[in-house]
Amino acid sequence: MDNKFTVTPWETNGKIDYEKLIKKFGTTKLEKDILTKLESKTKSGKNHFFFRRNFIYSHRDFDKMVEGIDKNNFYIYTGRGPSGKMHIGHLIPFIICKWFQDEFGCNIYIALSDDEKFAVKQKLDLNTARKYSLENIEEIAALGFDPDKTFMFIETDFIKQIYKQALEFSKRTTLSTAKAVFGFKNETNMAHLFYPFVQMAPTTLEKNKFCLIPAGIDQDPYWRIQRDNAEKLGFKKVIAIHNKLLSTLHGVGGKMSSSDSDNSTINLDDSFETVKKKINKYAFTGGRPTLEEHRALGGIPEICVIYHYLESLFEEDDSKLKNIYDEYKSGRMTSGEIKNILILKINNYLKKHNENKIKNKPLIEKYMHTGKLAKKMQEM
Amino acid sequence: MDNKFTVTPWETNGKIDYEKLIKKFGTTKLEKDILTKLESKTKSGKNHFFFRRNFIYSHRDFDKMVEGIDKNNFYIYTGRGPSGKMHIGHLIPFIICKWFQDEFGCNIYIALSDDEKFAVKQKLDLNTARKYSLENIEEIAALGFDPDKTFMFIETDFIKQIYKQALEFSKRTTLSTAKAVFGFKNETNMAHLFYPFVQMAPTTLEKNKFCLIPAGIDQDPYWRIQRDNAEKLGFKKVIAIHNKLLSTLHGVGGKMSSSDSDNSTINLDDSFETVKKKINKYAFTGGRPTLEEHRALGGIPEICVIYHYLESLFEEDDSKLKNIYDEYKSGRMTSGEIKNILILKINNYLKKHNENKIKNKPLIEKYMHTGKLAKKMQEM
Repeated sequence: MDNKFTVTPWETNGKIDYEKLIKKFGTTKLEKDILTKLESKTKSGKNHFFFRRNFIYSHRDFDKMVEGIDKNNFYIYTGRGPSGKMHIGHLIPFIICKWFQDEFGCNIYIALSDDEKFAVKQKLDLNTARKYSLENIEEIAALGFDPDKTFMFIETDFIKQIYKQALEFSKRTTLSTAKAVFGFKNETNMAHLFYPFVQMAPTTLEKNKFCLIPAGIDQDPYWRIQRDNAEKLGFKKVIAIHNKLLSTLHGVGGKMSSSDSDNSTINLDDSFETVKKKINKYAFTGGRPTLEEHRALGGIPEICVIYHYLESLFEEDDSKLKNIYDEYKSGRMTSGEIKNILILKINNYLKKHNENKIKNKPLIEKYMHTGKLAKKMQEM
Repeated sequence: MDNKFTVTPWETNGKIDYEKLIKKFGTTKLEKDILTKLESKTKSGKNHFFFRRNFIYSHRDFDKMVEGIDKNNFYIYTGRGPSGKMHIGHLIPFIICKWFQDEFGCNIYIALSDDEKFAVKQKLDLNTARKYSLENIEEIAALGFDPDKTFMFIETDFIKQIYKQALEFSKRTTLSTAKAVFGFKNETNMAHLFYPFVQMAPTTLEKNKFCLIPAGIDQDPYWRIQRDNAEKLGFKKVIAIHNKLLSTLHGVGGKMSSSDSDNSTINLDDSFETVKKKINKYAFTGGRPTLEEHRALGGIPEICVIYHYLESLFEEDDSKLKNIYDEYKSGRMTSGEIKNILILKINNYLKKHNENKIKNKPLIEKYMHTGKLAKKMQEM
């Protein structure tokens, strides 16, 4: 391959070629007819811009679910690996969860995988993973899910309810299959080896519904084993939709990761000044070396991280986005100007997010224990 | 080796050479001075005949525990793999548990490893493993443990309380170590691979006490990994005492196993007639081909399963046992006569066991949920 990249549940490197990933993982491109059908069934009459802009671009069996889509035919299961504080890229699956809940009224299950992060991070202890889990839940709760239809759980707390299904999946998977799918080596630790089966287990929480997983395509290997075994266990094969990964500030194509230097990501608790500094100082643009050249040749939105962020997360309005594209492409808009647009957008977004975070704190007890769905889960 | 045998947690084959096993597993022979010290601290002033007769014959660090033995310096953890109904050999660890509790007032934790048996038995499902667990608990409860100092649990029920410690042990163990210790192969399933760490976890239930494991030496591999990691985790290394394995009816040296044909074992629910028939028809004796030869040459107690059962389980009185040995050895006692002694002993034992099983049924709720220790565990 001339363009080397790695995408696994635990590691993403290099510039990602999404077409190749579809082939590599054996998933299906999300085609227009499915999206048209989905849109026709929404309450608002409009697909989320993640769909409109092909940011969610690949799937497994999503067409089967869309066929009869309704709050009673599916629920959503997603999660967050609590390895530290969250950045804007981490919100993507939750944004799409919220959209589905608003449009269809579905149940949502959100796992905080403290066990996973403990297993894979050499230095992380369980108490710290728990602390991160609780902090991360505050960020996720900011999105304002329905407190009776949303269950958030820390996996080590909820293990009793999911352990048996983890056993069912793991009994049906040999070590050699697990090595092939997850790339386990002789030096991999045994907590890491078992974790995928814990992650699979909540795909069986509602027996007769489809379980929809919105996630980065890097999480796909988990669902392959689920899909090979679910029907034998009396459940439906998981449905997946895959979003592209939000790039670092350093260039379009890689995945934003909190393991990188702090300068490559926008954290949810970054101050206005920090956002401004990071965008101005570290963001890779599609601008030309000099203003003169820029005016003459125009910017290159396709390689511009600023444009990528506006398109992927911060400019919901398609016509405004198109206008920015045209202005930048033509050279009428400078890199400084497009940066200022993004800085303002991000800071507005974060301001609202942090207000909602405070406002929704009282809902957390409902999401975890006392809401209608949470209560049912706790009593399982 | 001229004498091939296999002893692992999941498989025992061939005639066991216990001296070789001590060397193979790297455990220590249980020497007289430790037993003398133990005896000096008992309430009754007398060691159990398992100790007196070298049936419990090997250990790890038992001397350290005996040094200051007292209900506050140790607790016992043992278990049962619920793969079907129980035979007399299965009672051995529980008999010694009961003895320790009577002599020292220690807490006892008894795990029913439904997850393990589900993982290793191809055809066993979790519901059936649960049913066996509940049936087996009735047999174990027949021994009459202290309801405030004994906790019996089914592992899939108690997993929340032990999962974190299972993660701690498993994070510290690489796949290659697990393969070396447990003999895992590429075709081993992933539920089986994780199970040892669940089994290890309850060795941390009482932080400042020794955890004593009475078990067959075939269970030793579990404790090696525990002992390598416990101190790093702030716990004491597990203490083990190893009993020899009760032979099948077919010959001294192998392990009684319910996986063999039903004719090789005495089950706890065998009727008087069944016991009589099994002993008379299937038990291997130390008798000679003809009565004449037997009278002339004498029997061979050392290879006689009947004598082995009397010595290992059914004749508590040392002088009576010696008398039987002498009579049989001299040829004055025939194989028919020694068989009749055993049949009577077993049937008396089973009669009492089954009466106690009914009598103690009401205690099960205490052992599992409402006794002092069980309650504390449930609220963990």
